[in-house]
Amino acid sequence: MPDHLGAPLDNPVFERLALVGLGLIGSSLARVARRKNLAREIIAIDASATVRDRVQKLDLANHVTGDAAEGVSNADCIILCVPVGVCGVVAEAMKTGLKAGAIISDVGSVKGSVVAQVEPHLPAGVHFVPAHPVAGTEQSGPDAGFASLFHNRWCILTPPDGTNSDAVARMRAFWEGAGSNVEEMTPPHHDLVLAITSHLPHLIAYNIVGTAADLEAVTQSEVIKFSAGGFRDFTRIAASDPTMWRDVFLNNKDAVLEMLGRFTEDLSALQRAIRWGDGDALFDHFTRTRAIRRSIIEIGQDSAAPDFGRQPKENDAQ
Amino acid sequence: MPDHLGAPLDNPVFERLALVGLGLIGSSLARVARRKNLAREIIAIDASATVRDRVQKLDLANHVTGDAAEGVSNADCIILCVPVGVCGVVAEAMKTGLKAGAIISDVGSVKGSVVAQVEPHLPAGVHFVPAHPVAGTEQSGPDAGFASLFHNRWCILTPPDGTNSDAVARMRAFWEGAGSNVEEMTPPHHDLVLAITSHLPHLIAYNIVGTAADLEAVTQSEVIKFSAGGFRDFTRIAASDPTMWRDVFLNNKDAVLEMLGRFTEDLSALQRAIRWGDGDALFDHFTRTRAIRRSIIEIGQDSAAPDFGRQPKENDAQ
Repeated sequence: MPDHLGAPLDNPVFERLALVGLGLIGSSLARVARRKNLAREIIAIDASATVRDRVQKLDLANHVTGDAAEGVSNADCIILCVPVGVCGVVAEAMKTGLKAGAIISDVGSVKGSVVAQVEPHLPAGVHFVPAHPVAGTEQSGPDAGFASLFHNRWCILTPPDGTNSDAVARMRAFWEGAGSNVEEMTPPHHDLVLAITSHLPHLIAYNIVGTAADLEAVTQSEVIKFSAGGFRDFTRIAASDPTMWRDVFLNNKDAVLEMLGRFTEDLSALQRAIRWGDGDALFDHFTRTRAIRRSIIEIGQDSAAPDFGRQPKENDAQ
Repeated sequence: MPDHLGAPLDNPVFERLALVGLGLIGSSLARVARRKNLAREIIAIDASATVRDRVQKLDLANHVTGDAAEGVSNADCIILCVPVGVCGVVAEAMKTGLKAGAIISDVGSVKGSVVAQVEPHLPAGVHFVPAHPVAGTEQSGPDAGFASLFHNRWCILTPPDGTNSDAVARMRAFWEGAGSNVEEMTPPHHDLVLAITSHLPHLIAYNIVGTAADLEAVTQSEVIKFSAGGFRDFTRIAASDPTMWRDVFLNNKDAVLEMLGRFTEDLSALQRAIRWGDGDALFDHFTRTRAIRRSIIEIGQDSAAPDFGRQPKENDAQ
């Protein structure tokens, strides 16, 4: 089925791919793995009976189970698609089932903590290649997934020193097969980069939506009605999965607090410029930030359409 | 030309509509006024020869001029579409040309300051009906405008006590003709509502993009590459017109500082929860903010499509 995702691979990267956790990311991986022939067989493992039922109905996998150790037996690749706070628990639960030579990976938004949690549970001869696809939407669950989620997005691999290079190469092939660009960096550097490009933006968005909800002088219905002035943009991010994001902040504390400190410092400077009527300082700051938007659009990481293309301009010419 | 904007009016609301400032908002008004027959004739007034030239080429008006007093003579409605900081100067420049019974309006994002600037220059017999369409994109200039910009968006009128009720009714008819829902409130209440739904979100977005640009440990190219983790959303708003936004903050200082104080207080509470590992506090906060997003989608003020519909899901079903 040739389409914008490209033709399926002639030979799958993995024989049996086990996905643990079939939420937005796990179910999107199941979809793209099948569509692009990234694995000959897909095993879906989820602790929730409701999720397993949906996965069956959506026909996302060859085998669906709630038993991690059973599900991973015979898998040559296992990807943890669970909140970062439970990666250690899941790794422990499945360790008796792992076969020699298997590759374990994950999709967590924090890497240092995941490495620390998973490594103690790795049997000899099993390779761990941590990964983070920088992709997602504000929706959750197996119905929210779609095959093109990773297309033209970046996936960051953070293999610890000494990781088997063949295992790293296979995970790279897998993500490239899913349509992603792949980059490697160390776990601490990943956690710093994502603290500013993802974690802090989410914290700020969650915060401003909370502030708006608590006002007495402005009603909730006014906040909602007049949200097109900018506020609605923040509500999208602030609708993301609470469990996932709680775990991100608990597991990337140092980098998030560091970035938050800088953000607050800079905000104080803008606040001071407003209080003292320093129009030049405001104008200079607001001019500087335009260039970054242009660069993001140029490298294809966002749409050039105004307002994210929410309101199509077609037929608007006179 | 029947389309999603609806049929043109049988009788225009105004005979001669003068638009002062043909940027995103002014040029969108020119387009929708012609498309929906909101005015029999459109006069475009702009201080910039470059803008006037584009307006001529785009054929947005019946008459184009750089002389405010000449342009407004014989107009029965004049709408100021300039940054809020220059509304007083523009009102003064055109006052000798105004005819008796004319209605002056504006589109400024701040109302208290605009009323204070314009009122001293109003000749007797001229009505002032301040207005603020809560609509826009991050783009600027006469080419960025489009006729459906105000469709299904709110326009807030803030007529001072004692304003001629017929003038208010005509401005309401004009905005309804442009596709907007109309609400009335006082200037101070408007300025408080918009401080939280528009001004603070812009300040926060400008700020985080500045913070990211200044990091030493994370390169600019990393910030740009991995922006799909949430950061890119903020860059859209932070690409808005610097002059317009400088003036908004200088002219709505008190309300913005009040909202900023609350925002910072709330952010400190989240920061403390992260530092002390209070997962329950984070989870509760992140759960509460989901409901507001749902309400905004339900009343049609944003798209229900994941990720604002940037990445279409069509053809993704297996």
